[in-house]
Amino acid sequence: MPENTMEKPNIVTCTAPVNIAVIKYWGKRNEELILPINSSLSVTLHQDQLKTTTTIATSRSFKEDRIWLNGKEEDITHPRLQSCLREIRRLARKRRNDGDPALDPSVLSLKVHICSVNNFPTAAGLASSAAGFACLVYTLARVFGTEGELSGIARQGSGSACRSMYGGFVQWIMGQKDDGKDSLAQQVEPETHWPELRILVLVASAEKKSVGSTSGMQTSVQTSCLLKHRAESVVPGRMEEMIEAVRGKDFVAFAELTMKDSNQFHATCLDTYPPIFYLNSVSQQVINLVHRYNRHYGETRLAYTFDAGPNAVIYTLQQHVPEFVQAVQHFFPPESNGGQFIQGLPVNQAALSEELKQAIGLEPMPKGISYIISTKAGPGPRVVEDPTQHLIGSDGMPKHTV
Amino acid sequence: MPENTMEKPNIVTCTAPVNIAVIKYWGKRNEELILPINSSLSVTLHQDQLKTTTTIATSRSFKEDRIWLNGKEEDITHPRLQSCLREIRRLARKRRNDGDPALDPSVLSLKVHICSVNNFPTAAGLASSAAGFACLVYTLARVFGTEGELSGIARQGSGSACRSMYGGFVQWIMGQKDDGKDSLAQQVEPETHWPELRILVLVASAEKKSVGSTSGMQTSVQTSCLLKHRAESVVPGRMEEMIEAVRGKDFVAFAELTMKDSNQFHATCLDTYPPIFYLNSVSQQVINLVHRYNRHYGETRLAYTFDAGPNAVIYTLQQHVPEFVQAVQHFFPPESNGGQFIQGLPVNQAALSEELKQAIGLEPMPKGISYIISTKAGPGPRVVEDPTQHLIGSDGMPKHTV
Repeated sequence: MPENTMEKPNIVTCTAPVNIAVIKYWGKRNEELILPINSSLSVTLHQDQLKTTTTIATSRSFKEDRIWLNGKEEDITHPRLQSCLREIRRLARKRRNDGDPALDPSVLSLKVHICSVNNFPTAAGLASSAAGFACLVYTLARVFGTEGELSGIARQGSGSACRSMYGGFVQWIMGQKDDGKDSLAQQVEPETHWPELRILVLVASAEKKSVGSTSGMQTSVQTSCLLKHRAESVVPGRMEEMIEAVRGKDFVAFAELTMKDSNQFHATCLDTYPPIFYLNSVSQQVINLVHRYNRHYGETRLAYTFDAGPNAVIYTLQQHVPEFVQAVQHFFPPESNGGQFIQGLPVNQAALSEELKQAIGLEPMPKGISYIISTKAGPGPRVVEDPTQHLIGSDGMPKHTV
Repeated sequence: MPENTMEKPNIVTCTAPVNIAVIKYWGKRNEELILPINSSLSVTLHQDQLKTTTTIATSRSFKEDRIWLNGKEEDITHPRLQSCLREIRRLARKRRNDGDPALDPSVLSLKVHICSVNNFPTAAGLASSAAGFACLVYTLARVFGTEGELSGIARQGSGSACRSMYGGFVQWIMGQKDDGKDSLAQQVEPETHWPELRILVLVASAEKKSVGSTSGMQTSVQTSCLLKHRAESVVPGRMEEMIEAVRGKDFVAFAELTMKDSNQFHATCLDTYPPIFYLNSVSQQVINLVHRYNRHYGETRLAYTFDAGPNAVIYTLQQHVPEFVQAVQHFFPPESNGGQFIQGLPVNQAALSEELKQAIGLEPMPKGISYIISTKAGPGPRVVEDPTQHLIGSDGMPKHTV
């Protein structure tokens, strides 16, 4: 079809958040459907700091599905992408067959152009696939007019993506069914529930890429007997305790369980054969810093958690942020001027007492932490109404390609 | 009593070996009696390379029990020392009461002077307390004429000391009784059983002292649910498998189980709250080196194991030692001349192929390893017949005090 007969595309843009688990997901019981061996629970981070933006265009003129990620065209035949496209189209077809009058049947046959960008560097080591697949599924659903329960489809893109379909505090219930129909995310409390809670992402200096989480968890399931025990006998109780801590805004219970669960996840990685190390010397120093800080005050004011990489995510309450950030700057002296060291929500200046420094008593690790992103809990995926924000132009192609 | 009326002391000198566990002991069910939560299995290292030497003198002239460790007088009232002294004297009294004619009843009332030295630096981070208490108990037994089953007494000095009471391959059977009478060491195979087996101690560069094993295992027992599972449900099967691997000289089975068990022990340390880290970046590099070396050859030629510190102990077969040592020197370039880098059993020169270097593909860590001690399995404690080797002179005092 020549360009001058190009049919103007229908364009939808949405954003979706990153989430950070406090009860960790590690290990699948079904690789294809992405069904986990245990339930998990996460906090959805605010999109003002960290988000994926996805624009999807449909047009009768498009000959095939295409996708651009962070400005670069990628292979649309990737199985997990295909799962999401297939499942959304299947859902739309089902709704239409069930007689939903709001659905335009012709849209189902249209090809899509997908364009997606993150507002944070991949180097931040944040689970960009969770935000990415959540955004993809949420946007596809808008395009095909299939709102409602979508976490089961997002899950088939990337397990933890299902938790990014909701804001606030979200559990992913593992489910029991073989077809995974009951393996869904559910909001435990909305983002407004615990306004004092703050989240600091401590981005560790660039390191060689470690074992990816997909292959890592496969090896763990196959070889770690501790993982099996964790999934069957430890996590169920911890899910209950964590939900109770979140509902009651009990920071001490929340924090201690968060740290214990992060440590146990990394313990199962070490019990994997060959062992997987995600924590490096910077991570170990952050862990020591947090425990010594808490010990100094005689109360648990900070919690750390680590995913499949060395970056630390710190949970704390608003009033402790300035001093802790100062402590991080002291024990991980930044490259040069500290101006760019703190990103996101503004952090007030604070003094660091000699007493605290001595109580922590660690050898400073220069440049161990590249920067800090200061954020809080935030809402789930959103539609972007402003058409200037579309990543795809009226020609159906990405506006900016790297 | 004036010096000129000093009664010439009776002097006995013995040596005892270090042992390195391949199924790890971590956690007590009874702190005072030192009863473990699981059985363990170790290889006794040869005393030509690593040993404790202990001299004990008795004399009617001694007014109190005294002890010198590595040239420095230490507190004899230490509870674990007292346990060993008390138990040996109790055993001697029992034998006498049972009518053993070989026992001189008067010896029981005598005070002892104990002098003990290691032929390896404490900095080597080897479990010197195991060799130390084994040697103490073995020598005391000679002094008081109470040979026989002594591992139950050595255990009360330091848990793993019971395994140093035998040569070769030794299991410590955890036992079931509350009084610990059945928690004893037993030889699985003698040191002559597997002559090709070699042991390399890779001494990591000095680091800050980590959490001690006594307090570390206490915290683990109190806080790690993975440790409980390991002790109850994993170790019993592994003990059987390990005994079978040792008996059958099945290096692949022996090596893989050794690595898995070391990793699982460190996993339970990480699952401890607060977490305990014994593996540092040098340890992680050794682990990666071993797995990549094995992968390159498509067979398990090397095994690592780590105790409560960063030093690696490598098990391998004689024919692989020269090349592996070369690989260690390549990936951990030593300080200056490599002359002192290899200690113990001589190691032949070997070439390192470019292919192997590239297959391993790690960034060299200069000075990460201080030196290597090359050794093999060896015998249990021995009496030293040569009186010039006594550490205590005829005046009843240490010959050389620092």
